[in-house]
Amino acid sequence: MKSKAAIFEAIGKPLIVDEIEVDDPGPGECLVKLEATGLCHTEIWYMGGGDNVDYEQLSPRILGHEGGGVVVKCGAGVTSLQEGDHVVPLYISECGTCPECRDPNTNLCSYLDDKGYYEGAMLDGRPRFRWRGRSAYHFMGTSTFSQYTVVPEVALAKIRPDAPLNRVCLLGCAITTGVGAALWTARVRPGDSVAVFGCGPIGLNVVQGARLALAEKIIAVDLKPERLQKAKELGATHLIDARKHGGNATAAVKSLTGGGADFIFEATGNTHVMRQAFEAVRYGGGKCVLIGVAKTGEEVSLVPRMLIAGRQLTGTAFGGCKGRTQLPWLVNWYMDGRLKIDALVTKEIPLTQINEAFAWMKQDQGYRYIVRYDM
Amino acid sequence: MKSKAAIFEAIGKPLIVDEIEVDDPGPGECLVKLEATGLCHTEIWYMGGGDNVDYEQLSPRILGHEGGGVVVKCGAGVTSLQEGDHVVPLYISECGTCPECRDPNTNLCSYLDDKGYYEGAMLDGRPRFRWRGRSAYHFMGTSTFSQYTVVPEVALAKIRPDAPLNRVCLLGCAITTGVGAALWTARVRPGDSVAVFGCGPIGLNVVQGARLALAEKIIAVDLKPERLQKAKELGATHLIDARKHGGNATAAVKSLTGGGADFIFEATGNTHVMRQAFEAVRYGGGKCVLIGVAKTGEEVSLVPRMLIAGRQLTGTAFGGCKGRTQLPWLVNWYMDGRLKIDALVTKEIPLTQINEAFAWMKQDQGYRYIVRYDM
Repeated sequence: MKSKAAIFEAIGKPLIVDEIEVDDPGPGECLVKLEATGLCHTEIWYMGGGDNVDYEQLSPRILGHEGGGVVVKCGAGVTSLQEGDHVVPLYISECGTCPECRDPNTNLCSYLDDKGYYEGAMLDGRPRFRWRGRSAYHFMGTSTFSQYTVVPEVALAKIRPDAPLNRVCLLGCAITTGVGAALWTARVRPGDSVAVFGCGPIGLNVVQGARLALAEKIIAVDLKPERLQKAKELGATHLIDARKHGGNATAAVKSLTGGGADFIFEATGNTHVMRQAFEAVRYGGGKCVLIGVAKTGEEVSLVPRMLIAGRQLTGTAFGGCKGRTQLPWLVNWYMDGRLKIDALVTKEIPLTQINEAFAWMKQDQGYRYIVRYDM
Repeated sequence: MKSKAAIFEAIGKPLIVDEIEVDDPGPGECLVKLEATGLCHTEIWYMGGGDNVDYEQLSPRILGHEGGGVVVKCGAGVTSLQEGDHVVPLYISECGTCPECRDPNTNLCSYLDDKGYYEGAMLDGRPRFRWRGRSAYHFMGTSTFSQYTVVPEVALAKIRPDAPLNRVCLLGCAITTGVGAALWTARVRPGDSVAVFGCGPIGLNVVQGARLALAEKIIAVDLKPERLQKAKELGATHLIDARKHGGNATAAVKSLTGGGADFIFEATGNTHVMRQAFEAVRYGGGKCVLIGVAKTGEEVSLVPRMLIAGRQLTGTAFGGCKGRTQLPWLVNWYMDGRLKIDALVTKEIPLTQINEAFAWMKQDQGYRYIVRYDM
C-alpha cells in the first residue's frame, strides 16, 4: 500500500517528503494508520549524525516515534489487538515476559533489542517499507513519519477510542518521559521537594508529573522567562532564572529546599547542568534523575564524596513507563483534565512542513509541533 | 585523669605515644575507658594531609574511631547510659530526633555536624584533652587513640557486655561499613547478584554482608590472590583476578552475571575502578555503591547514557547503619557466629607499636590491626 512519508536519506540533509510503499504486516505485527505524529529532538539528533556507537546511520530510513493511530490490519498470530483499535506505538515495548517486564522496577523491555528491531527491520530481517525501489529501514520500532507504519504488537499500547489522537500521540515520548520520570522512576511522594533543570518539552512534563505526585515544592529552573512562566502554568511553585545565578542554580535550589531537594530532574542534556543538578540534591538519599541525552562523547564528572554522603544518581528512559500497561492511564488523566497536553502544543502542521518545524525546534521556538496526516 | 594516647602533631609525622590529660565529661557526654581500638586507613589519610576542604588539619589531635570500651563516668543529663555499660563510639551519631534520624532511608544523623563536634571540640567549644599544656582536639567525635576518651551520649552504641571489646571495636567502622553497605544502603535481597571491587578490609565485609543477605552470586574482584582467597572464606562464590583482565573486571563481571550485576560495591577509592564498577551493573535498575574514599580532587566520570538506561550510582557512609539502634544487631550476629570478625584480625599490638602498624597497612599487609590498651 502507498503511504505519504518523510524519508531520511543522509546526515545533515532535510527529510524528503514523498510516497513510499508499505508492505503487509508480518506475524505478530500490525499495520497502523497514523492520524498524527509529534516531532522530537531525537530525530534532529539522528538527522545530525546521531550516535554511531549505538546506531548505524541506516538510510533510507523512516524516522518518528510519537504517533497516534488506528490498527488497520493485523498479521498472523496477533491476539491482543484488532482492526479499529486505537493505539500509540511504543519505542520501548512491553512484551510481558522478558526479565525486565517481570521486574516492577524497570520498563526496559528487552524484546525489541533482543529481536533485532533496532537494526531497522522486522523479525524476519526485512523492513516493511520501500522507497524508489529500495528497502527503507524502520526506526525505534515505530517509524511514525509514514502515515501507514508497521509495528510489532508488543510495541503498541491500546488506548480508549475517544481520546484525540492528535494530542495523545505526544504520550509516545515527551509527555510520558517527563511525567513518568517523576511518577515511576523517582517515585516522588506527596510533600517531597522537586527541582527541574531545563523547562523544555520534557522538563515541563516533569513539572506536571511532580504536581500529579503531590510534591510540595516544585522548583523550575531555566534560562528563559517564558519557559519559566509555562512551568508555573503546569504546576511549578518556585521559578529560578539561572541567568541570575551565573548560569548555575545549585546554590539557589539548595537555599530554597533547606540544603538540597529530594529529587532533581535534568532535562537539558548538558553535562555541566547534569553536575549542577546532582549537586543540588540533599545528602542522605536525595536523588538526581537524568533525562536529557548528552552529546556523543560527553561525560558527566562528579565528586565521589557527594555520593558517599548518600546522594543518588540515575536516569530514565520513557519515564520508567511500562507502555502497554501504563500509557493508557495517562490517556485517562488527560481525558479527565488532570494531565495537560494542549498547553504544550505550539502548532499543528501538514507533513510537507516537517523540515520547517524542525528548524523552529532547533531555535527553541515553542514547545511541541504535531504533524497531522489529514492536513 | 591521665591517659595513654597517640597524639597527631603534624602532617607526615608519626603519632607521638605519650600521656595526656582527659577532663571530666560535660553535660550529655560520657567518659569511656577503651579496651581496644582498630586502625583504619582514614587515620593514614588524615596524617598524610587529609582533605583540607572538609577538615582543617587541627593539631595536636587525638585520632582514632574504632573503639570498644566501658563507660566510667557520665556527664550531667546523660540518661541512656550508665557507668559500666559496654559501648562502641560512633563517628556518625544517632540523636534520634534530627530529620535524618527520622528518615528510615539514611543514617546520616546531622547532630554532631550541627553542634560543631567535627571542629574538634565538645558542645561548649572546648576539647576534653590536654597535652603538654595545650588543648588537644577531638577527631570524628570518637578519638579512640586515647585509652580514656570523652564522647557525646548520642555517639555511643550500647552493646551486650559479653562481647569481646577487642573484636567488636571493629564494628565502629570497617565491618559495619562493609556489611551495612550490602544490608542497609543497597538492601541486597535473597538471590541477587553482587560484585565487590576491592577486597581489602572494607570489601571483604561487603562480601560477608552479601552472604548474610542471601545473595546468590557474590563475585570478588581484586588484584591479589590472597585477598581473593580471603573473600572466598567470607562467602564469595566467584573470584576475579583483575590482573588477568588487563586490570578491568567490567567485562568479566558482566559475563558472569548475564549482562551486569544487581549490585556492585566499590571499595578501593580509585576513581577509575569506580567507573569500571558502575559500568558492570545491569541496565534497568542495577546499582553501584561507592564506599572507597577518593583522593582529594579526583572525580569519577561517567557516560550519561548508561544512567539513562536505568543504572544507579550512590555511595554509603558507615554502611547506612543507624549506630545506636543497629550496631548492637551486628554484635549479636558476631556472638552467634554468623558474622566473622576474627578472620579479619591480623595482629593485636600495644599502643607503642601504632606507627609500625600503620606502615604495615600502607604496604597492604594483612587486614586489620588492633591496639589493645592492656598490652
